[in-house]
Amino acid sequence: MSGREFPTVTDVVTQDGIDAYAEISGDFNPLHVDPEAAAASEFGGIIAHGPIALQAFFRAATEWLGAEAMPPGSEVKVTYRAPTRPGDDVGVRVAEMETAADGHTELSAECVTQEGTTVVSVRALIAPG
Amino acid sequence: MSGREFPTVTDVVTQDGIDAYAEISGDFNPLHVDPEAAAASEFGGIIAHGPIALQAFFRAATEWLGAEAMPPGSEVKVTYRAPTRPGDDVGVRVAEMETAADGHTELSAECVTQEGTTVVSVRALIAPG
Repeated sequence: MSGREFPTVTDVVTQDGIDAYAEISGDFNPLHVDPEAAAASEFGGIIAHGPIALQAFFRAATEWLGAEAMPPGSEVKVTYRAPTRPGDDVGVRVAEMETAADGHTELSAECVTQEGTTVVSVRALIAPG
Repeated sequence: MSGREFPTVTDVVTQDGIDAYAEISGDFNPLHVDPEAAAASEFGGIIAHGPIALQAFFRAATEWLGAEAMPPGSEVKVTYRAPTRPGDDVGVRVAEMETAADGHTELSAECVTQEGTTVVSVRALIAPG
């Protein structure tokens, strides 16, 4: 798969998506699902679950991988930078991407909101499929 | 929060959970949602989306963090080892966990199925809250 570009993907964070993720994860922290409690917190309002900030990256990676799943041995390192909130439109900016002769692809990317805030940084080492 | 133990959590992977995650993520790869196509693939059956293999870890981390969100600067590094399938009961085994004087907690853990297969390895550096 060397040489293929990483797709451009954006993901809009919504309260519906956050509520659905709460159901799946069992994480009903008031910061995610209770607007009043979240407004009274240090965050000043609802914030998304951490993995939701990565959806744009996951979508782009899935599209790039095509029909394959993440091959065993692949590594994803995520650094949380700032909370993501309902209404944020998160896009992926790929900073570096390189496929080595052995088929491993290494890339670094940032998930960035429409306001230019980096919410997560990602480094991924994708094993040959 | 130093000195608190990382909670014991297990998470059963179900087709319903996989279907719900497909809705949220937009990833309807046949490997995740089409039993016949998945059975004909190299995986021999349905496999879960990568992040689902992490649910037990996320739940344990969320419980451990309590009311807080993952503090900015926190890092999570995930290595995919093997696919996770419907019916798997995934638990978290913490190998090392240490809170430094500056409040950073570093831990390494593995998500392991009921059969003893490690599906993902995780290293996390959780910033002071």
